[in-house]
Amino acid sequence: MSNQLYNEIKKEFQLERLIFFSDAVFAIAITLLILEIKVPDKEFLKDHGGISDATILHELKLLIPKFLGFLLSFYLIGLYWSIHHRMFGFVTTYDRPLLLLNLIFLLFIVLMPFSTGFYSEFMGPELFEKQLKVPMTFYVLNFCCLGFANFFMWRRVGNRKYKLAEPPIDSLFLAMASMRALVVPLIFLSMLPVAYLTNVLYAVWIPMSIPVVMRIAKRIIEKKHTTHQHIHSS
Amino acid sequence: MSNQLYNEIKKEFQLERLIFFSDAVFAIAITLLILEIKVPDKEFLKDHGGISDATILHELKLLIPKFLGFLLSFYLIGLYWSIHHRMFGFVTTYDRPLLLLNLIFLLFIVLMPFSTGFYSEFMGPELFEKQLKVPMTFYVLNFCCLGFANFFMWRRVGNRKYKLAEPPIDSLFLAMASMRALVVPLIFLSMLPVAYLTNVLYAVWIPMSIPVVMRIAKRIIEKKHTTHQHIHSS
Amino acid sequence: MSNQLYNEIKKEFQLERLIFFSDAVFAIAITLLILEIKVPDKEFLKDHGGISDATILHELKLLIPKFLGFLLSFYLIGLYWSIHHRMFGFVTTYDRPLLLLNLIFLLFIVLMPFSTGFYSEFMGPELFEKQLKVPMTFYVLNFCCLGFANFFMWRRVGNRKYKLAEPPIDSLFLAMASMRALVVPLIFLSMLPVAYLTNVLYAVWIPMSIPVVMRIAKRIIEKKHTTHQHIHSS
Amino acid sequence: MSNQLYNEIKKEFQLERLIFFSDAVFAIAITLLILEIKVPDKEFLKDHGGISDATILHELKLLIPKFLGFLLSFYLIGLYWSIHHRMFGFVTTYDRPLLLLNLIFLLFIVLMPFSTGFYSEFMGPELFEKQLKVPMTFYVLNFCCLGFANFFMWRRVGNRKYKLAEPPIDSLFLAMASMRALVVPLIFLSMLPVAYLTNVLYAVWIPMSIPVVMRIAKRIIEKKHTTHQHIHSS
Repeated sequence: MSNQLYNEIKKEFQLERLIFFSDAVFAIAITLLILEIKVPDKEFLKDHGGISDATILHELKLLIPKFLGFLLSFYLIGLYWSIHHRMFGFVTTYDRPLLLLNLIFLLFIVLMPFSTGFYSEFMGPELFEKQLKVPMTFYVLNFCCLGFANFFMWRRVGNRKYKLAEPPIDSLFLAMASMRALVVPLIFLSMLPVAYLTNVLYAVWIPMSIPVVMRIAKRIIEKKHTTHQHIHSS
Repeated sequence: MSNQLYNEIKKEFQLERLIFFSDAVFAIAITLLILEIKVPDKEFLKDHGGISDATILHELKLLIPKFLGFLLSFYLIGLYWSIHHRMFGFVTTYDRPLLLLNLIFLLFIVLMPFSTGFYSEFMGPELFEKQLKVPMTFYVLNFCCLGFANFFMWRRVGNRKYKLAEPPIDSLFLAMASMRALVVPLIFLSMLPVAYLTNVLYAVWIPMSIPVVMRIAKRIIEKKHTTHQHIHSS
Repeated sequence: MSNQLYNEIKKEFQLERLIFFSDAVFAIAITLLILEIKVPDKEFLKDHGGISDATILHELKLLIPKFLGFLLSFYLIGLYWSIHHRMFGFVTTYDRPLLLLNLIFLLFIVLMPFSTGFYSEFMGPELFEKQLKVPMTFYVLNFCCLGFANFFMWRRVGNRKYKLAEPPIDSLFLAMASMRALVVPLIFLSMLPVAYLTNVLYAVWIPMSIPVVMRIAKRIIEKKHTTHQHIHSS
Repeated sequence: MSNQLYNEIKKEFQLERLIFFSDAVFAIAITLLILEIKVPDKEFLKDHGGISDATILHELKLLIPKFLGFLLSFYLIGLYWSIHHRMFGFVTTYDRPLLLLNLIFLLFIVLMPFSTGFYSEFMGPELFEKQLKVPMTFYVLNFCCLGFANFFMWRRVGNRKYKLAEPPIDSLFLAMASMRALVVPLIFLSMLPVAYLTNVLYAVWIPMSIPVVMRIAKRIIEKKHTTHQHIHSS
């Protein structure tokens, strides 16, 4: 093999390793989410109403907030994995700042199982009765940091000066991707004023709007795609 | 490298990444199963009959349902990994719906350690004495969702309209694969009427028939394979 | 690309996927070992002698058996990973029985964190005072099953009839590898008669002889290698 | 394919497998760090001051040392992953001693979640009031072993005699890499005399100097790089 081809393959393998490491962290974080949901304890039930379908079902009902939190975070980590997946579909090489940004991004992915467990521990009736804001604030801030790290990764990868994507990402597509990278954390951030100024109960439902907002953003992109036909397909 | 070849390699790498991410989730979920089996506690034994081979063996015997649950779920996750493995042996590209279906499929894989722990926590004598149906129902429903997600993945991958497999999967083979994808969850689903209408004790043994049913289905496939010799070997 | 080359690459990728899935299971099992060692609890110490370097050091000393068990299992999983690594260096394709044998092999890898935690929970002074044999027996049996699964994998991979390794593995090398695959579990198995007939204290030290025995076996192989110069380098 | 090319590709794949196995261990260890931070317990709060934003925030404040320990270890594992990543960018083949050194290196990576949990369990006010030295000593020793294993890996990889890197690593670059591999554990080691002879409070802040020291070392390397222009870019 020629030296140049060899070096190109080596560099590409180094990039692959960065990607697979990220994938492994995503996969572990998304799977660890389930560890926050504890199986109802037989010994506990024996002393509290006895073991029966009714008592087990009651324990299961108490876990509903945990399952909702699990589903939300599974959706979010899955969403960010697919964004990461798409982003690195453009990337052809990396530099130290991108490697560092990626590690910071992964830091907030790793924090997700804790934040999810924390938020959903209190996402029961107490959250509304006592208008608890601390667990939600923690979750929202974790997620916003994740979104902002993602935003800065798009800016780095998309900046033609650093030559990280060859051919460079179309500037319109990049503007759209960055916009979407900001929209999701901003939706979450809007939960805080709603919770602090009005009612925690209203804030809880805001993330439900993400798929809708994402679809709208996607349609706008696709529409502009057809208008400007020179944009790269994602 | 020519641009076209480059794009093909890139697309293939993106598909590989989707596959490796799934593999990592499979591997973590199958390994986390063991965390649901807690080591007998020395301090607990000290206060309950003292530490001796007899008391330790007694504690180990209490774990037998946990081990059976572990084995069943290890078998099922291993089975679905090998089905996923075979399916993506045909796939040459992916689209967003397949990516989404795959994430939903992985969601139910990730839920397996919880469902297994929950089912096997109560799979002791209580299950039969008190005819507990809730843990079994939860396990069966989790597994059915997994099977149905798998079924829809086969339908997507096999549909020639979407060109996800090149050359397209033989329609007879596809019909067989889809049939098998439905058979396993349907066997599990049959546990519910048996448990609710007759006796939980009978329902528990139904999954034992899966390897037999799978072998029968496999033989039928192989027989049809030899008849229609133009079918792709799996 | 020609269809034949394409199919070869596809088949190779399927084999890679089998290998990476196994690697992930190895990596998770070896890392989960650490979860069996619980950090000394501050609140517990407050009520038992107070928090001081002396009490913390005392708690740490109580963890020594856990650390020894961790080291032994880390060594064994690492050893079997490197054996798996070497074995699949020969393998060029796979069939369903090999896939199944590999899953059974992984089952016993996944059980290791539990067996290690169980054995080391009782590997304190009680083990010798009370001559506990159950935890050791469990650990030894888990490990023997692992070794025997490994042995059958060598037999399958090495059997020229199935054409899983191309060029086929040299028969002398294969005989050696199979021999070693049996030696390690047999060393462990010898712990049981020693423990049951003489003293548990003697049995505990038997695994220490593995590196020595392995080195002797390796030297014999290398010696035969130089004699029969047509053997493949490992 | 010619046999020689085939063997080269096979050897390269074996090296890749070693690298991906290491990546998986890194990824799991870095993600398990979060499991050491336990979510505040609702039931506990009910009996201790009631559930309110104030009490939850108080519980969160008690977790600050845990978060600091998490951040430090996340930084260190991330740092060593990127060093491992750079090192294996040079490596073109491996031998048994490198495989063994790599396993020893991974052993200390796997220990990190425990050491971090242990150190940060006591990194509250007690650490300073009672001048606790045991948890810090444990953490420092774990980290030093990691650094020294890394140092010996550089020596092995860089030694032209073993031909593990092709082209061989420039001797100046290697001297720099080895120097840095020693500097980080030595900074940590300096925590011990400071803690034992002066005050634990001073020792705790020493790791903060690592990024600065690393940047200085990096600048020196880069400066020498520009002077000796024949050095390989990292």
